Amino acid sequence: MEIIQLDDYNILIGDVWSTLNTFLKESSYSKMAILIDENIEEFCLPIFKKNTPNFDFLKIKINSGEQHKNLETCQNIWQQMMALDLNRNALMINLGGGVIGDMGGFCASTFKRGMDFLQMPTTLLSQVDASIGGKLGIDFMQVKNSIGLFNNPRAVLIVPEFLKTLPFNEIRSGFAEIIKHTLIDNAEQWDALQSIQDLKKVDWPAYLSPSLYIKKRIVDEDPFEKGIRKALNFGHTVGHAIEGWALETSKPLLHGEAIAIGMICEAWLSHKVVGLPMEAVEQIVHFILKIYKPYHLPESAFEDYIHLMKKDKKNESAAINFTMIQPIGKGMINQTAAQDLIIESLNFYNQLYPQKVGVD
Amino acid sequence: MEIIQLDDYNILIGDVWSTLNTFLKESSYSKMAILIDENIEEFCLPIFKKNTPNFDFLKIKINSGEQHKNLETCQNIWQQMMALDLNRNALMINLGGGVIGDMGGFCASTFKRGMDFLQMPTTLLSQVDASIGGKLGIDFMQVKNSIGLFNNPRAVLIVPEFLKTLPFNEIRSGFAEIIKHTLIDNAEQWDALQSIQDLKKVDWPAYLSPSLYIKKRIVDEDPFEKGIRKALNFGHTVGHAIEGWALETSKPLLHGEAIAIGMICEAWLSHKVVGLPMEAVEQIVHFILKIYKPYHLPESAFEDYIHLMKKDKKNESAAINFTMIQPIGKGMINQTAAQDLIIESLNFYNQLYPQKVGVD
Repeated sequence: MEIIQLDDYNILIGDVWSTLNTFLKESSYSKMAILIDENIEEFCLPIFKKNTPNFDFLKIKINSGEQHKNLETCQNIWQQMMALDLNRNALMINLGGGVIGDMGGFCASTFKRGMDFLQMPTTLLSQVDASIGGKLGIDFMQVKNSIGLFNNPRAVLIVPEFLKTLPFNEIRSGFAEIIKHTLIDNAEQWDALQSIQDLKKVDWPAYLSPSLYIKKRIVDEDPFEKGIRKALNFGHTVGHAIEGWALETSKPLLHGEAIAIGMICEAWLSHKVVGLPMEAVEQIVHFILKIYKPYHLPESAFEDYIHLMKKDKKNESAAINFTMIQPIGKGMINQTAAQDLIIESLNFYNQLYPQKVGVD
Repeated sequence: MEIIQLDDYNILIGDVWSTLNTFLKESSYSKMAILIDENIEEFCLPIFKKNTPNFDFLKIKINSGEQHKNLETCQNIWQQMMALDLNRNALMINLGGGVIGDMGGFCASTFKRGMDFLQMPTTLLSQVDASIGGKLGIDFMQVKNSIGLFNNPRAVLIVPEFLKTLPFNEIRSGFAEIIKHTLIDNAEQWDALQSIQDLKKVDWPAYLSPSLYIKKRIVDEDPFEKGIRKALNFGHTVGHAIEGWALETSKPLLHGEAIAIGMICEAWLSHKVVGLPMEAVEQIVHFILKIYKPYHLPESAFEDYIHLMKKDKKNESAAINFTMIQPIGKGMINQTAAQDLIIESLNFYNQLYPQKVGVD
């Protein structure tokens, strides 16, 4: 088991079970609840229960899916917490992907003004992205994570075994954040990533740990996203808008799928605004297209995309805020681009696929 | 102007306007919004605007009343914040009573994961009670403040002029918290309070400041209510239940009116459980009955009261948690009482008024 020590909690990676059992045994929580959805109940909960045989957990169950990461589901969770008579001395374990972690953490942090919670991310995305930084929240009015807060769990437990329960597109989605971390902070690892031939054969813990250290370093420096932490936003200004819009269609995108598209658009913007060499853009495009499936950004949605980008909470003024990169391995925060140029970046992505595919 | 310095913000009492104007001028907020209700708009907003003539504030307006301190109103507030394009670099000013402060602070603390806010409490209750301690939140499923968090404002500005806009029953309601502070922490001031003959002629700033210092000392010692801060809960275990229940009837009680009843019940429980002399109980009863109007606790509601007390977030186990007093001027936290005894305390209150009055 590897331990990454953060200021006020630890991330445990690997065979975490005996540590977890000791913690639960030595703690004096009034009750222990576990938040799950129907997929987690089927695939991950049995693994969890097998490894914590001496404890009973009260189940709080919600429907899976980003479209349920909203206030209505929070009400449902809080109602279940009330019905189970949880109090602020109880513990909540959030077992699942980013939706469970973000929303469960938000609900735990605001139930009776805050109770302890553990994060047990089960997807590659949540293991690499959501386990550091204390960002919790839900989507509101189509704007991702627009209601939420910063709060840390008691611990994050990363169990690689859970990744084996994932469909391939979830692995691919999570991989986008690993790509992002290397692009903004680690040119050497970018070179290493290039050698990956088959995502199905990757030894994930070996990639998780360096990615988590990149994020740790950045978040430590700027816990409340006043400055450098915005570097982690690379690909997300455009990507979040695409994701939010697609969520309302019959063909939603996974987070990382949208971020992969966002990284292509924002790499191109980095070329135009901060002079990232076109060869670097092409290298990024080549790598991402090799992995992610084609998608068409409908021109009829461009106005909505821009509207959603304007609502992004990282904006400090009327201008849309970007993190760009120049060179690969170095993020440049607080860049802006005119709307025309942003539209051009969407067209740049679209022309990579001459055949229209995906949503239309 | 008097300044009470807390760890990370100040409370300003008195003529705060020039300090506020300087702060607003020197700050670089992207936008400034002010949360109000229809009463505040009529009575307090003109005073506020007259004293901040060089600034424009975006209005966020909600309906007044504790019955609106819920998630639905939060949605309304967040929607207005979105529509006004507020971002996390904007400022929110919560101008109003406890509902505005608690709910506005909660909405500001969770909008885009948190933005700055100023509290400008306009009622005696919120000036004496809500301005220290960072407790924010809303009622949920009839349980008061059951969703919320701890977070501090940039500053609290207490303007005595606002108290002149209040109806008398609001003054009386706020006075309950001043009574509570003296009962749990300051026997000397309890004696001083006894001499108050007419609440309409009280010089409030003179009573606010000592009460705020009591609360500051207690909160400083225990910011997250793990221990001694529970002393502030005297009168509130029973009082909150009565208040929550009455909220659903045609005769809701003001917070302080319910707490006054709760203090009588809990003084009696203090006699039974921790040996507060009956003479002290009688002194408290005499003083409270002199000020507060009669109310009848319907026996048909007793079961609901107990149920609501069990949901109180201060409970650490199945037992209902109380702060009792013994002697006057000294709170004793983490006391419990059996349900029968709690019921008896409700009957003790009722028999003070042989004629049934109020809700039935």
